[in-house]
Amino acid sequence: MSQLIEELKGKLDAPAMITGADLQQRPGDMSGNLCRAEAIVRPKTTAEVAEILKLCNIHNHPVVTMGGLTGLAGGCATRPGDIGLSMERMTGIEEVDVKNHTMTVQAGVPLQSVQEAAAEVGLMFPVDLGARGSATIGGNIATNAGGNRVLRFGMTRQLVLGIEAVLADGTVIKSLGKVLKDNSGYDLKQLFIGSEGTLGVVTRAVLRLIPEPRSQNTALVAVPDFESVIALLHRAKYCLGSNLSGFELMWDSFFQLVMAHRDRHRPPFADQYPFYVLIETLGSDIDTDAALFENALEDFYAAGLIADAVVAKSNTERDALWAIREDVEALISLYPMFLFDISLALDNMQAYLADINDSLKRRWPESQCVVFGHLGDGNLHLVVAVGDGEPDTRTAVEEIVYGTLRDYSGVVSAEHGIGLEKKDYLSVTRSDAEIAMMKCLKRAMDPKNLLNPGKIFAL
Amino acid sequence: MSQLIEELKGKLDAPAMITGADLQQRPGDMSGNLCRAEAIVRPKTTAEVAEILKLCNIHNHPVVTMGGLTGLAGGCATRPGDIGLSMERMTGIEEVDVKNHTMTVQAGVPLQSVQEAAAEVGLMFPVDLGARGSATIGGNIATNAGGNRVLRFGMTRQLVLGIEAVLADGTVIKSLGKVLKDNSGYDLKQLFIGSEGTLGVVTRAVLRLIPEPRSQNTALVAVPDFESVIALLHRAKYCLGSNLSGFELMWDSFFQLVMAHRDRHRPPFADQYPFYVLIETLGSDIDTDAALFENALEDFYAAGLIADAVVAKSNTERDALWAIREDVEALISLYPMFLFDISLALDNMQAYLADINDSLKRRWPESQCVVFGHLGDGNLHLVVAVGDGEPDTRTAVEEIVYGTLRDYSGVVSAEHGIGLEKKDYLSVTRSDAEIAMMKCLKRAMDPKNLLNPGKIFAL
Repeated sequence: MSQLIEELKGKLDAPAMITGADLQQRPGDMSGNLCRAEAIVRPKTTAEVAEILKLCNIHNHPVVTMGGLTGLAGGCATRPGDIGLSMERMTGIEEVDVKNHTMTVQAGVPLQSVQEAAAEVGLMFPVDLGARGSATIGGNIATNAGGNRVLRFGMTRQLVLGIEAVLADGTVIKSLGKVLKDNSGYDLKQLFIGSEGTLGVVTRAVLRLIPEPRSQNTALVAVPDFESVIALLHRAKYCLGSNLSGFELMWDSFFQLVMAHRDRHRPPFADQYPFYVLIETLGSDIDTDAALFENALEDFYAAGLIADAVVAKSNTERDALWAIREDVEALISLYPMFLFDISLALDNMQAYLADINDSLKRRWPESQCVVFGHLGDGNLHLVVAVGDGEPDTRTAVEEIVYGTLRDYSGVVSAEHGIGLEKKDYLSVTRSDAEIAMMKCLKRAMDPKNLLNPGKIFAL
Repeated sequence: MSQLIEELKGKLDAPAMITGADLQQRPGDMSGNLCRAEAIVRPKTTAEVAEILKLCNIHNHPVVTMGGLTGLAGGCATRPGDIGLSMERMTGIEEVDVKNHTMTVQAGVPLQSVQEAAAEVGLMFPVDLGARGSATIGGNIATNAGGNRVLRFGMTRQLVLGIEAVLADGTVIKSLGKVLKDNSGYDLKQLFIGSEGTLGVVTRAVLRLIPEPRSQNTALVAVPDFESVIALLHRAKYCLGSNLSGFELMWDSFFQLVMAHRDRHRPPFADQYPFYVLIETLGSDIDTDAALFENALEDFYAAGLIADAVVAKSNTERDALWAIREDVEALISLYPMFLFDISLALDNMQAYLADINDSLKRRWPESQCVVFGHLGDGNLHLVVAVGDGEPDTRTAVEEIVYGTLRDYSGVVSAEHGIGLEKKDYLSVTRSDAEIAMMKCLKRAMDPKNLLNPGKIFAL
């Protein structure tokens, strides 16, 4: 190890290397995993990343790539002896191409910086999520990040035109094309997107931008029952068409937890309802889109699908509505708790949630299961609190949540990835043949198993 | 070989096997490649596909999978001795899931059947292209088909939620999930999409449907120069936002060829212009979308970007406008000719076309280069006629078209794929490292090189 460290020091500038006591200052990730790496290297260029991987390959040394450390599945967790490869010094926005609506960036740039650079020239990068200030584009790509606008614009996968990545042996794969359509052989970038740093290290990307929408309409609506939530989603898709960009559902249990913080939120409704949906459209014409939105709300109300509605009349009011949906800090009052991120078909959701609630209550009568999520994408976040946070308890809760999910053909990770924390449950969603194919790809591209080893699956 | 044929006969029903003289009746592909296969097998189920591949694997025998044979790159071409695997008996539409907006189909179903089955329940499968009546979903997936609505809905890749495929050794990879978001490990389906049958045989798919748009607005506009075409595209994106679904460009050379067929078309304009653009929107509100569309056209006219416009007032008129754009038969008058399908950045297009026109005219003063395509996607189709169609002439033309493309960072295949016909030029778009990675994946997944061998690249 010390020889590898010495060789790395020989190739990189002094600030690139963090070792010894300085490592104690390094933050852990959002799952509470501390930094256990032997050293962290912080390259500034793709050539340095290639140099680092080449040396680690020669020394058979595992490397864990790190972005903003906002992941929720332990994908960046390090073990003693690991080399951490942090992208924090590769934050350049290399080009904003206004003519072709693209942006070329280094992987360590935070999502929010990308959003802001696009907005400066009247464009938008549609990926958006709560951790935008810290999460990096490289991390978004490695985990195929979802977020608040998937319904309209797709996940990160749909918004990346080109990728540069470095393979385990230091080979640089430069596929930084800017075009929308490219069927010239295998679409290699797809392998780096969503593979959580196990097949290569993403160093640069060409992002797809769109013209900044001229209109944005946002409402929080109260819904009497779950059947109406589903009917509302379908009706919203028909009435609002391509403009519909957000359909975020909160169960009342989530809503009340957030509303308990009167210092942060003002209650939008006088009464209490079982469900609340944040509906948002993005469009190209301020007047007609506002009229379309108002008409749609009236239609929903007339059809009995919504019981009340608050329409944002300003950006401040819009931010206040989104602040409710994004106030995950309010969940801390449930601590200790376990967070889940599942997908399932819309018509299975209610039965699934009833099933797991039954099982949880049977075992822990005082347990709480708070639910919210991106309903328009079939993606729910579950927060389960049963009173303690011990590993055995976690396993027991996971067995209920994921075990039941199997019966409903659900997905153990909609947008957070598998990382370390869900690898034991990958087989809930994936067959043996699928997992074998994943391992076949991993062995082909990283034969020494050096890139983020042990994440997603054990080889 | 005869032993393999006997074993296949033992596993399949009589109509499944086509051999001997009956093979003469089989159609060639649209590139003029005749069927040279030793036998064609026509399975009815995934299990039969698996059985066929297993036997071919045991006998080390190459297999060429065939869809609707509408490909334009020779991707389904067979050599003497090949086994052709035709999906023509796997045409089942297994489920239209109205609640979750998905359709599960067998791979051999024609695109148009999918479109019609979706329309019957008020939904739409957005992939659309001229060959819709013959092209199969499996072929669309294998080639990541593009077409007329990529600008709004993306290519086939973006509209496939789940795939079932059979690997070279007969292993069935069943990833038929219906959810929009699934980050549970590697997204394996991405490897089968666009890999032209070289990594697996797609047997079934779950397609993403959207609510059928309520409004459709279509106009053909005349544009004075290329700068205005680009400015028009940008302005259309801003003014029409998410509704903009088509922006199809025709150079006057293409337009005149089509208009020569007065039996098929009525001239939409009294005057002649350098460029014509078919603009289409799909939306959710008949009245407001029509107003938005009219306003946008007025805005384009006021800005001097368009010189004239014809707006379709009925479906018949809309079909007549699209018939101009889709009348590729009119190109036959140029025969012999060579067809190209390239992508490049918008701001490189004009210089690129001027360059190749210069080179073509220098060598063949009478040559013609007729251009049209999906400008909204940066994708142009070029038809080059120089007087003869001999292989050497083709090579000389290709060297001009692709050689020049290299200088402009263009892409040798935007939507047609590489197949046989463009494999010599893959390196124009892809680096050695990228091609090496493709080969590494091919070797990992098809170690005996039995699936559509020799397509895309030579191993």
